[in-house]
Amino acid sequence: MQRYFIEQDNWQDGEIKIVADDYHHIVHVMRMEEGDTFIANRHDGQSAICRIKMIQDSIVEATVEGWLQEESESPIDITIVQGLPKGDKWELILQKGTELGAAHFIPFQADRSVVKWDHKKLKKKLPRWQKIVKEASEQSHRTKIPKVDYVISMAELINKSATYDWKFFAYEEATREYQSLTLHNYFSQIEEGQSVMICIGPEGGFSEKEAIDLRTAGFQAIRLGPRILRTETAPLYVLANLSYYFEEMRC
Amino acid sequence: MQRYFIEQDNWQDGEIKIVADDYHHIVHVMRMEEGDTFIANRHDGQSAICRIKMIQDSIVEATVEGWLQEESESPIDITIVQGLPKGDKWELILQKGTELGAAHFIPFQADRSVVKWDHKKLKKKLPRWQKIVKEASEQSHRTKIPKVDYVISMAELINKSATYDWKFFAYEEATREYQSLTLHNYFSQIEEGQSVMICIGPEGGFSEKEAIDLRTAGFQAIRLGPRILRTETAPLYVLANLSYYFEEMRC
Repeated sequence: MQRYFIEQDNWQDGEIKIVADDYHHIVHVMRMEEGDTFIANRHDGQSAICRIKMIQDSIVEATVEGWLQEESESPIDITIVQGLPKGDKWELILQKGTELGAAHFIPFQADRSVVKWDHKKLKKKLPRWQKIVKEASEQSHRTKIPKVDYVISMAELINKSATYDWKFFAYEEATREYQSLTLHNYFSQIEEGQSVMICIGPEGGFSEKEAIDLRTAGFQAIRLGPRILRTETAPLYVLANLSYYFEEMRC
Repeated sequence: MQRYFIEQDNWQDGEIKIVADDYHHIVHVMRMEEGDTFIANRHDGQSAICRIKMIQDSIVEATVEGWLQEESESPIDITIVQGLPKGDKWELILQKGTELGAAHFIPFQADRSVVKWDHKKLKKKLPRWQKIVKEASEQSHRTKIPKVDYVISMAELINKSATYDWKFFAYEEATREYQSLTLHNYFSQIEEGQSVMICIGPEGGFSEKEAIDLRTAGFQAIRLGPRILRTETAPLYVLANLSYYFEEMRC
């Protein structure tokens, strides 16, 4: 069944209103009619089966028929922080990362990021990124849309990281270092409901200075398996591993 | 250090010859000179540090300086079988799947594949696909290049599957069925060195007939986490999980 994330303001006493892009999708893409049903997701992660009551010029009105018990959100609050990669890799990360359960995405300007973006440019990009995670959330049957944010500098990143329960960064050198640096060693210590920040370097990886700064700020260096992963593959590997450990192994 | 997969014929008594694309890459892209070193991977998965002895018009001659002990290959022999997806998704699967440790890729014509390819068209595509997995192998420091093959029909696919130790197919309905269908239940029974075939449907998933045929042929239906994954995300999820379980948890 088709899913839509409906803004808080458009829920009222068991009735919802659908406008803008979602209106277009329901009426012109799905060609739904009065009496048809869909799933509406609310801001708090609750979802409901809704039936269309009336289709007007720019509003669809629907009635909540029943609430669903869905468990498609990760029990871990995962933030992916990524050194800005080249081309459309960031959009790939947003889409796939949403399917794989991330709660929050933050790109940052790494020393070795080839792409240089300023605040202005980033602000322009945000709506597009938010659209990607919204659509991926609907498609993957999530009940919450991940947040997309941005920070420019390592200093800001380290500031943001202060509130997290766990902080990791993928450090290529770790691949050949100690066996103890696998994700698995840490996973067994993470508890449900905790927040985890995973920091991934851009194409050239982290600079030595960044690695020192991250370690100083309490980030643990982790290896991501025995092979060298591209920058855009690394977050997907971590997210799939977290899903396996916390959603599949434990159930 | 740069890596090249050198064909069997070009190894002889501690000397190797580099020709064609790899010659171009060493001489014109990397601009290496006599005395420079790189890593050469042999057909059997062994790799060696080599030093350039002589650069000629179309051949680089190098000497093996020492053999490496590398463990970048999965202990499980994994084959990804994929219902032909749309656009360039298959190429994304080849590249990322190689980074994540697959040994073998087989696309097949599923009932719901939007793309229809005949033998002729597929044969033309093979060299490009093989190039993608070769380059991804070099980049991810693998010591073996995955095989890319193709089958056209479900019958051929089932024939091929007969020799595998384990056979799974991702079945969307399984997501909401029994908890026992997680990958984890099976992983604990798989032994190192065994062969595993993972079959993923195209965008629309498997048809009911295909699901019946696969079950009859001994395939187990598995769920891939609690969210609905796109067809190109599904194999990456399975591969990352296999890597986590067999390469990270166990070491």
